Amino acid sequence: MKPYVEMTAEELSAELVELKAQYKKVQAMGMNLDMSRGKPCQEQLDLSMGMMEVLDSTSDLTCEDGTDCRNYGQLTGILEARELLGDMMENNPKDIIIYGNSSLNVMFDTISRVWTHGVMGNTPWCRLPEVKFLCPVPGYDRHFAITEYFGIKMIPVPMTPTGPDMDIVEKLVSEDDTIKGIWCVPKYSNPQGISYDDETVRRFARLEPAAPDFRIFWDNAYGMHHLYDHHQDHLIEILAECKRAGNPDLVYKFASTSKITFPGSGIAAIATSPNNMEDFLTYLRHQTIGHDKVNQLRHVRFFKDIHGMVEHMRKHADIIRPKFEAVESILERDLAGLNIGSWTCPLGGYFIMFDSLPGCAKDIVARAKKAGVTMTAAGATWPYGNDPKDSNIRIAPTYPCLADLNNAMEIFTLCVRISSAKKLLSEKYGEASQD
Amino acid sequence: MKPYVEMTAEELSAELVELKAQYKKVQAMGMNLDMSRGKPCQEQLDLSMGMMEVLDSTSDLTCEDGTDCRNYGQLTGILEARELLGDMMENNPKDIIIYGNSSLNVMFDTISRVWTHGVMGNTPWCRLPEVKFLCPVPGYDRHFAITEYFGIKMIPVPMTPTGPDMDIVEKLVSEDDTIKGIWCVPKYSNPQGISYDDETVRRFARLEPAAPDFRIFWDNAYGMHHLYDHHQDHLIEILAECKRAGNPDLVYKFASTSKITFPGSGIAAIATSPNNMEDFLTYLRHQTIGHDKVNQLRHVRFFKDIHGMVEHMRKHADIIRPKFEAVESILERDLAGLNIGSWTCPLGGYFIMFDSLPGCAKDIVARAKKAGVTMTAAGATWPYGNDPKDSNIRIAPTYPCLADLNNAMEIFTLCVRISSAKKLLSEKYGEASQD
Repeated sequence: MKPYVEMTAEELSAELVELKAQYKKVQAMGMNLDMSRGKPCQEQLDLSMGMMEVLDSTSDLTCEDGTDCRNYGQLTGILEARELLGDMMENNPKDIIIYGNSSLNVMFDTISRVWTHGVMGNTPWCRLPEVKFLCPVPGYDRHFAITEYFGIKMIPVPMTPTGPDMDIVEKLVSEDDTIKGIWCVPKYSNPQGISYDDETVRRFARLEPAAPDFRIFWDNAYGMHHLYDHHQDHLIEILAECKRAGNPDLVYKFASTSKITFPGSGIAAIATSPNNMEDFLTYLRHQTIGHDKVNQLRHVRFFKDIHGMVEHMRKHADIIRPKFEAVESILERDLAGLNIGSWTCPLGGYFIMFDSLPGCAKDIVARAKKAGVTMTAAGATWPYGNDPKDSNIRIAPTYPCLADLNNAMEIFTLCVRISSAKKLLSEKYGEASQD
Repeated sequence: MKPYVEMTAEELSAELVELKAQYKKVQAMGMNLDMSRGKPCQEQLDLSMGMMEVLDSTSDLTCEDGTDCRNYGQLTGILEARELLGDMMENNPKDIIIYGNSSLNVMFDTISRVWTHGVMGNTPWCRLPEVKFLCPVPGYDRHFAITEYFGIKMIPVPMTPTGPDMDIVEKLVSEDDTIKGIWCVPKYSNPQGISYDDETVRRFARLEPAAPDFRIFWDNAYGMHHLYDHHQDHLIEILAECKRAGNPDLVYKFASTSKITFPGSGIAAIATSPNNMEDFLTYLRHQTIGHDKVNQLRHVRFFKDIHGMVEHMRKHADIIRPKFEAVESILERDLAGLNIGSWTCPLGGYFIMFDSLPGCAKDIVARAKKAGVTMTAAGATWPYGNDPKDSNIRIAPTYPCLADLNNAMEIFTLCVRISSAKKLLSEKYGEASQD
C-alpha cells in the first residue's frame, strides 16, 4: 500500500469505508482491555512468589550486624539491602538510603522537603516567587503530576534519540536560576524506551546551573529491565560521573524493585552524595523511625546477591520480550510504508512510544477506547497533559496476555489508520468528513 | 524512713554517704542497658512470627474484591485491611485509609501536606506568618520534633489525670486563629499512661476553634494496648463524637500495628471524615500509586479478625504486665514515703511517668547513664526538650528482660535518692555539695 499522503481523495475515501467496516467488526468483539499503565502481568508476578517463603516462623530475622529486623531502627536501611541495591544501582552502599515500597513516593517527598526546607541550606522553594523544572518530553506523567501539584512551572525540553536536547538543557539551566530541577528517566526511558548516550550523561554531570539548589532527578526505574541478553543499552553511572566532574551534589538518583518483585511491595532507594544524604536524613529523622526492614531482608534472602537479581530479570524478559516484539511486528505489518506514524523499538523498559500524524493522538485513543482498548490518555506524556502536536501515544505491552495484546494492537493500528485517513482527507483535500 | 524534706542536714549527709557507696557498687556491675525508647522486647516480637508464614509461594494473594495484592493499585488500602483496622480503631472502614509501615510518617506527611497545600482549601500554613500547636505536656517527643521541624510554635498545655486541661485548650483555641492543631495521645498516653475521660473527649469534639483549619491530631497509638483483662480504660470514639457534635471534620485520627505485630513492618492508618479524606487523597494520589498491599493481606490473614487481634494483645500484656508491675513495685519499695517523686501506674500503653523533685530530672538521668542505664533524655517529654521544672522522666519498661529491668530500676531509684538528697542539702540547708 502506498503512503496515505500520496493517495487521492477517492482512494482515501475508499480506504476509510473499508477501515470503518473493520472497526465495526472489532467493536462487535466486545474487547475490554486496560493497557493504560506499565503494569507487570500475572506471570511476571508469579516469578517472585518464592519471596513469600524465604522467611517463615522459624527464620532468624537478624541482620549481619545484629539488628533485629522486626524492631525499630536502622533509618538508612539494613546493610545487606544497601549492598544489594548498591549493586543494582552501581553505587556504594554507603551512598544509599533504603526507603519504603515506592520510589515515586521518595521523589514526591524529596520535592516536598525542598519545598518546605530547601536544598542544603538554600531558601525553601515555597518562599520563592517562581520555581521551574525542565521536563524532557515526551516523559512520565506521574513525574509531571508531582511538579504540577506543587505549582512548579514545567518547561518542556525535546527528547532526541540520545536523551534530552542538551544544548537546550545547558542553556536554560545556566541562564535561569528559577530552574531548580529536571526529571530524567535515563535508561529505557518512559515512554520512548531509549537510553541516554555517554555524551548526554557527561554533559549532565558537567551542568553549570545558575541555581545553587538545582538538582537532577535521575529516576533510574529501568536499570535492570533489559529485554535481551546480548543486546543491551549501557548507561554511564551518574553519581560517579558527577563526582569526576567536580559536581558531586548535582544529582538525586532513584530506583526501586517495584518492577522486579512486586509493584507496591518492593523496596525503593535513593543514591546521592554525602552532603545530599545528610539533607535527606534531616527530614527522614523526623518523618519516620525506619522503613520496613523485614521486607528489605526478604528481598535480600530471596535474591541472595545481584547475580540472583540478574537471573530473575532474565525471566521477566523472557515473558515480556515476545509482547514487545508482537507490538512492533503488528505496527510494522499494519503501518509500515503508510507514513502515518513512527514508533520506537526499545531494548528494555516498559513502553513503546508511538507518534501519529499531528492532531490524531487524542482521536486514536478515543477510538481505541470505543472499541474496548484503554490506552494511556493522549497528552499524558506531556506536562499539564498538553501535547502541542497531539501526536504522542504511550504503548504499555506488558500487562495483557499475548492474545489480548495482538487483538488490542490490531484495534490500535486500525484506529491509527482511520484517524490518519480522516485527517488527511479533511486537511489535504478540504473534505468534510463525518465520524 | 522519713521524708527527705524532714531530715536534718546531718541525716541527709549520712544518707548521701550511704547512697554513694551503693552507687559505686552498682557502677562496678558494668550494666549496659538502653531503656530510652518504647520498644517491644524479643518475646513480644516472637508472638508475630506466625505472620511470616501465613503467606507462602502457593498462596493466592487475591483480595475478596479480586484485586491482585502483588500489583499496583488500591490507594486507600485493601478492603479487608480497612475492615480489620476499622474494627481496631472503632471506625467505619470507608473512613479509613491504610498507609505504609508508620503512623508517625502519616502524621509527618499530614503536617507537610497542610504546610504546602493547606487544610481543605485554606491558606497553606507555609504562607502564614505564624502557626502554633498546642502540646499537652508531658507528651511524646517525636510529635514535638515534627512540629519543631516545620517551625510551628509549640504551646505547652498542662495534662491533668483526665487529659489536657480543657479550660485552657478551649480558651486558647477559641481566641487565637494562629493555633492550628493539638497533639493528643488520648489512650494510655505517652508518657503518663493515662486516658482522656469522657468529658475531655466530649469537650474536644465540641471545640470552637477560631481557625477554620484547626485540626486535632489524635494519635491513638495504644488503643489495643491494655495490660489487664478486666481492668481497662475506655475512650470515647472521637470521630463519632465529633460527628454527633456537628464538628465532623475536626479530627485526624492515627493508629498502627507497630506495637501489635512488628515495629517497622506493621501497617498504619488514618480515620477521618469524608471531607478530610478527600484532602488526604488529593495529596496521596500524587505521592504514591499505593502502599504495601501484600503486607496488608499478611496482617489480615494472620489475625483473621479483631478477635484474633484481641487475643494476640492479651499475649503481649502477659509479657509486659510483669515489667510494669516490677517497675511500680521497686519505685514503691525504694521511694514511697520519701516524698521525692511520684509516678503513674497505668493500665496500658508503653510508659510509666516519673516526676522528681524540681531540678533533679537531668541529674537523675545523667547519673543513671553513668551507671550504665540509658533512660529517655530528661526534657524529651516537653517541646524543645525544655522541661521548665526539670522534673519529668519517662520510664519505658517493655524492652529489657525482667532481671535487667529490676537492676535498672534499682539503679534508677538510687539515682533519684542521690539527686534528691543532694538537692535538698544544697537548697534547704545551703550546704555546698560536691559530686
